[in-house]
Amino acid sequence: MTGLPTSIDAIRGLCENLPSGSDEAARAAAARQTTLTKPPGSLGRLEDIAVFMARWQGNVVAHLDKVEALVFAGSHGVTARGVSAFPAEVTAQMVANFASGRAAINQLARHAGASLKVIPLHIDRPTADFTQAPAMDEAELVEAMTSGMAAVDPASDLVCVGEMGIGNTTAAAALAAALFGGKGVDWVGRGTGVDDAGLSRKAQAVDAALARHGAALGDPIEALRRVGGRELAAICGATLAARLHGIPVMLDGFVASAAAAPLAKLAPEGLAHALAGHVSAETGHRKLLAALHLSPLLDLGMRLGEASGACLAVNVLRGALACHAGMATFAEAGVSGSPPA
Amino acid sequence: MTGLPTSIDAIRGLCENLPSGSDEAARAAAARQTTLTKPPGSLGRLEDIAVFMARWQGNVVAHLDKVEALVFAGSHGVTARGVSAFPAEVTAQMVANFASGRAAINQLARHAGASLKVIPLHIDRPTADFTQAPAMDEAELVEAMTSGMAAVDPASDLVCVGEMGIGNTTAAAALAAALFGGKGVDWVGRGTGVDDAGLSRKAQAVDAALARHGAALGDPIEALRRVGGRELAAICGATLAARLHGIPVMLDGFVASAAAAPLAKLAPEGLAHALAGHVSAETGHRKLLAALHLSPLLDLGMRLGEASGACLAVNVLRGALACHAGMATFAEAGVSGSPPA
Repeated sequence: MTGLPTSIDAIRGLCENLPSGSDEAARAAAARQTTLTKPPGSLGRLEDIAVFMARWQGNVVAHLDKVEALVFAGSHGVTARGVSAFPAEVTAQMVANFASGRAAINQLARHAGASLKVIPLHIDRPTADFTQAPAMDEAELVEAMTSGMAAVDPASDLVCVGEMGIGNTTAAAALAAALFGGKGVDWVGRGTGVDDAGLSRKAQAVDAALARHGAALGDPIEALRRVGGRELAAICGATLAARLHGIPVMLDGFVASAAAAPLAKLAPEGLAHALAGHVSAETGHRKLLAALHLSPLLDLGMRLGEASGACLAVNVLRGALACHAGMATFAEAGVSGSPPA
Repeated sequence: MTGLPTSIDAIRGLCENLPSGSDEAARAAAARQTTLTKPPGSLGRLEDIAVFMARWQGNVVAHLDKVEALVFAGSHGVTARGVSAFPAEVTAQMVANFASGRAAINQLARHAGASLKVIPLHIDRPTADFTQAPAMDEAELVEAMTSGMAAVDPASDLVCVGEMGIGNTTAAAALAAALFGGKGVDWVGRGTGVDDAGLSRKAQAVDAALARHGAALGDPIEALRRVGGRELAAICGATLAARLHGIPVMLDGFVASAAAAPLAKLAPEGLAHALAGHVSAETGHRKLLAALHLSPLLDLGMRLGEASGACLAVNVLRGALACHAGMATFAEAGVSGSPPA
C-alpha cells in the first residue's frame, strides 16, 4: 500500500486485490503442530490459531511483540430517535475517561500487552440521522475510512479494533440488515441497556433507514456510508489496511463486526485475516458472526465495546503461540509417538 | 484445617463443615461493579468473576499474586483393557517432559503467571484394574487425597488443578456414571484419540465397573476409591483443601471435573468455590459440567488435560480483576450516570 486512497473508487480498488497470506508458513506451522508432545488436535483451537497467525505473519512461529488496540469514537445523528439508554454526550466523556486510563479498555489493553490508541472522529459533529439522509457524504466516508487505515502501524503483529459511540449499535444493526437482509427486529438489541420502548425505537429506526435508502444499500460501501458512522467506517478502513500490510485483526463485538462486514461482502475472503475475539450479549452478534463464518474465541456475555472483548481474547492467542513456540517435539522429549491418525 | 486427615471418616468430617466464603465481600464487590464507568452488566461474566473472587478471598478487590497450577499424575490398571491410544509408559515420559519445561502446561502456566507443581503419585505402581477390583484400598485413597491436600499452599490466591494419566478418561467416565447415573456410552469419549473400537472398549470397561461395584458406588468417596485413580483422588483432596483454606479453584477438563465431583455430591455447595476453566472436547464434559451447575469460561475444543484449559482461563480472571480494581467510577470520571435499572 503506497499512500492512502483519496476516493471511494480507490478504496474499492484496494478491496479487489487482497493478499492471501502465506500458504507455505501455514503448512509449515500445521506440520510443526503434529510433532509437538500432545495428542494430535488436543489443543483444539489453539492449534488453528497458531496456523492462522503463521499464515498472516508469514512466519512458521508467529509472535505478538507489538499488539495495537485501536478504539475509534464517533457521534450519531440517529441518537435523536431515542435509541440509547445514555445521552449522546457520554461519547466525549468516555473518550476523556480513556485518556485518563481508567476505563475498562485501559485495564484490558494493558493486561493484553497491547498499546491503546483512541481515535476520536469529529465527535463534536454527529453524522446525519440516517433515517432521514445518508449518515455521511462521500468525502466524510473517505476521511473516516482513511483515518482508520492511517491508524494501523505497519509494524504491528496484531490489531484489535473496537469503538465507542452512543447510538452505534443502531447503526450496526442497520448495516447488518443492509448487508445480510432482515428487518430491524432481526438485528437490534439492548445496546447499553435500553428498555422495551427503546428497543422498539431502535427497530423502527432501522426499518425507516432501510425504507429510506432502499436499493442503494445493495452496495456494501454505499451501505456503510448511508447507515454506518464514522467509527464504523474507520474500523472498516483499519481492517482493510491491516490486510494490505499482512497483519491479522481481532474484531471486538457487534459494532466492530458489522463495521468490518462490508469487506466480506466485497471479496469472498475479505475477512480471512480476522478473528472474532468474542460473541457479545448484543442480540444480533451471534447471527452476524455466523453470516461472516467467524467463530468467536470467547463467549462471556460481554457487551461493552471499546475493544474490550478483542483485548481479552489476545491472551488466548498468546497462550496458543506460547505452546506453538515452546513445546518439545515427541523426538526431543523421548515420548512414545503419536497414534496413527 | 489443622494437620491432614488420616482416615476416610476424617475426610468425610471435613466435607460436612465447609466454609461458605464472605457474603460481605461479595456484596461490596457487587456494589462496586455498579459504580464503574460502563453500562450495568456490560462486562458480563467478568463482573460475576470479580464478585466470586471477592467472596472466596474475603476481599472486595481480589488479587492473583500467587497462582498455583497443580498437576497430579497417576497410573491406571484399567489400561490393560485397551482404553487408550497411547501406551501406559507415556505417563512417566510426560512427567519427565513437564520437568524439562517443554510440555504445553509449562508454556500455559508461565503465560498464566502460575507456578507449576507436578506431583507424580506412585506412577510406577498402577491402581488395580477397576473392572476387577477396587482401584485403591482405603489407605491408598487416603494417601492420594492427602497428597492433594498437602500440595495446596495456604498462601495461594488461586489453585488450578489438572492431571496426567494414560487411561484416566475411562476412570473419569466411570466416576461420572457412578455419581450421576447413566452407562459407559453416556460418558466415554475419545480421550487422547482412541478409534471406534477403543471407544467401545472404554464403554465396556465402565459398564463392567458399574456391574462389579454396584450399590457401593452410591457413596461418593467410595466411588472415588473404587473407580477413580490416584490423581483423581489427589485433585479431589486439593479442591477440598483449597476450600478449607478459603482459596478459589480453577478446574481443568473432564478428568479434573469428575475428580472434584464427589465434593458436590457430599455437600450441596461443595464446589461453590470452583470455576470451570473450560469445557473440553471430551464427550462427557459438557454434561458433567451441567450436572455440577458449572458454566465453563472457555470453549476452545481443547482436550489435553495437564491443567492446560484451567491455566488458559486464568487470564480471563486477571482481566476481570484488572477491570474491577482499575476502573474509574462514574463520579470520578464525570461520566453521565447509569440509566435506571
